Amino acid sequence: MLTISNRGQKMPASPIRKLVPYAEAARKKGITVYHLNIGQPDIATPPAIMDAVRHSKITTLEYSHSAGNESYRQKLVTYYKKNNISVSANDIIVTTGGSEAILFGFFSCLNAGDEVIIPEPFYANYNGFACAAEVKVVPITSHIENGFALPPIAAFEKVITDKTKAIIICNPNNPTGYLYNREEMEELKNICIKHGLYLFSDEAYREFCYDGEYISAMHLSGMEEHVILMDTISKRYSACGARLGAFVTKNKAVYETAMKFAQARLSPPGLAQIMGEAAVDLPDNYFDTPKKEYLRRRNLMIERLNTMPGVFCPNPGGAFYAIASLPIDDCDKFCQWLLESFSFNNQTVMLAPATGFYGTKGLGKQEVRLAYVLNVDALNAAMDCLEEALKTYPGRVETNKKTKQSSVKV
Amino acid sequence: MLTISNRGQKMPASPIRKLVPYAEAARKKGITVYHLNIGQPDIATPPAIMDAVRHSKITTLEYSHSAGNESYRQKLVTYYKKNNISVSANDIIVTTGGSEAILFGFFSCLNAGDEVIIPEPFYANYNGFACAAEVKVVPITSHIENGFALPPIAAFEKVITDKTKAIIICNPNNPTGYLYNREEMEELKNICIKHGLYLFSDEAYREFCYDGEYISAMHLSGMEEHVILMDTISKRYSACGARLGAFVTKNKAVYETAMKFAQARLSPPGLAQIMGEAAVDLPDNYFDTPKKEYLRRRNLMIERLNTMPGVFCPNPGGAFYAIASLPIDDCDKFCQWLLESFSFNNQTVMLAPATGFYGTKGLGKQEVRLAYVLNVDALNAAMDCLEEALKTYPGRVETNKKTKQSSVKV
Repeated sequence: MLTISNRGQKMPASPIRKLVPYAEAARKKGITVYHLNIGQPDIATPPAIMDAVRHSKITTLEYSHSAGNESYRQKLVTYYKKNNISVSANDIIVTTGGSEAILFGFFSCLNAGDEVIIPEPFYANYNGFACAAEVKVVPITSHIENGFALPPIAAFEKVITDKTKAIIICNPNNPTGYLYNREEMEELKNICIKHGLYLFSDEAYREFCYDGEYISAMHLSGMEEHVILMDTISKRYSACGARLGAFVTKNKAVYETAMKFAQARLSPPGLAQIMGEAAVDLPDNYFDTPKKEYLRRRNLMIERLNTMPGVFCPNPGGAFYAIASLPIDDCDKFCQWLLESFSFNNQTVMLAPATGFYGTKGLGKQEVRLAYVLNVDALNAAMDCLEEALKTYPGRVETNKKTKQSSVKV
Repeated sequence: MLTISNRGQKMPASPIRKLVPYAEAARKKGITVYHLNIGQPDIATPPAIMDAVRHSKITTLEYSHSAGNESYRQKLVTYYKKNNISVSANDIIVTTGGSEAILFGFFSCLNAGDEVIIPEPFYANYNGFACAAEVKVVPITSHIENGFALPPIAAFEKVITDKTKAIIICNPNNPTGYLYNREEMEELKNICIKHGLYLFSDEAYREFCYDGEYISAMHLSGMEEHVILMDTISKRYSACGARLGAFVTKNKAVYETAMKFAQARLSPPGLAQIMGEAAVDLPDNYFDTPKKEYLRRRNLMIERLNTMPGVFCPNPGGAFYAIASLPIDDCDKFCQWLLESFSFNNQTVMLAPATGFYGTKGLGKQEVRLAYVLNVDALNAAMDCLEEALKTYPGRVETNKKTKQSSVKV
């Protein structure tokens, strides 16, 4: 009999993309939909890196080295050095997006049935890769009241078992925007060393830190063997469609193992590597403009959100996401209603229900994730829509901020 | 304690790439190495498809749809129609190379511990993906004496168990070049229907069939739910580095499941999709030239091989590979020796030991895979090297063809 695999059945559908048909239907009705639901920035990909592809002299687009072109890996060494991360080209495997780096990490370090601890809310696709690798995600809850800071070490200790093999962090964080401080990073180091755990560190948003210092897992001394950096150019250079990432570790056994998985899939995308190589040659001040732009958007969006009755949104230190709690009964219903039944001046807004970012069932029902990936005018219009929607949404639940905040505690 | 996963430990290193350091050392000594070891053609990528990327007006390289751009999938519908394969855009998921299509198939249809039957010798990376998905590969042996024809149905029946979920074929075949005929395809259909098995059909080389008719698994009527087509533009348009493939099935449950894995990794490469789309607009006679060129190379190489004393190479009907049996003790030793200790006119040849393509230990020790991916002059020079090498190789084993042929029987 033809059957679907267990992992295929368990595999979660994307919590964001399940709303896509409703957005398409809204557009067909002539409604403008502001997409704050996905981390797809409207910032231009640097023309210089697109031009590098346009001007390439390729006659046969060959497989690259399975670890990525040596020339690109050398460029990445330079890039990381600028970020005070000291690695060699032989510590780097160029991957198809950050996604493949996550998959290589899971495949190389984790057995079926092993457990990884992830502070929740977390990037929903970690669930997908865990499902593919038959690994169990053990969430520990971070809370909106303190801006989604790292849960206390006691929360980690409580869930560590013989099966625990790794902790995953995303820093600065998707979906919360939280930026881990030095003390938190040192705590993570201590617990990883004490319990012999890997630290998988997803640092896709390193260039976008607004308040406080960016600390890479690779900056932590004395835990070099524990750290696997999962990286991508998607957000850095607004090149999500390139599908170019990196798996970086100084742990030679892990590296050699990941290389075997890399060899099986032959090579990472070739044209994207030309882009990645050119990107490292962008002027050092390249990030000033997008960073300033994201900061401006963050300030606007957070201020607008916190002036809406019943809404609370902590100010995120990095990335381009925020999680807000709303005076609503159910974020999945609300986000669908926004697309299906609401419009304001023939416009509406698409948000990501926060439930999809929690591993613990029932959490996040009054929260949404907003990605400030649109320009200030669009963002203002989106906030107008949200403000109006909250006035008329039939499932509105009256809360004051204090009550609402305590209602999301576990 | 930091440990490497079981699958990571079991994961085979690439049987081809393990020789790479020896090839690099040879080059450093100033020796020209003819690469017949890997399916990287020297044929130019069609300039029109490179130009499509060069002239693209992209300002922000965004994520595409997780199934690939609708416009590209529509083009693929046209492409498949030209090959008498009738599918819709909603039967297609655009993947990162054929590799990802294989992985999606395994993840969606197979549990850890499930078994897939593959006629050996087979594409070595199936082992890698099976290892990642913790699936067991059950080889059934095809033989050089009859040109690696499909093993008899009895051989399949003998190994089918409750755990058997799929058969994988590669048609035309890598590494043997064998092209399955209609009777063989019908036999595969019957056994899949009888035992409720999926047929994973890797048709990366469909354009390169020289003798006999190309029968796609998608041409077999009455087994639509069973077939998963794994495809790639790598060989078709000599665009291996693009990393663009396709997962195609009319089985909706499988499609929906694979889409969840596709969503987790967000999208396939964006620039490559522009190439893929332009490729479908190439003139219908585009393939005439590369096909003629491969045929010329095949004829030359097969003739040269079979005139060498003790060498036997069946004439492959498609793709651009052949497996030859050589009068040698051990192909792994021989291929390394060619790079490490041999040169002729300051040249040598790199071949792929066939042992890496067999699932049954001990098979293929006197065989090598040759990819006729170089132009006729280079191919002739490579054959000169091989001919000379076989005269002086210290591990030469005297056989006549009859003896040698029977020695590879199981």
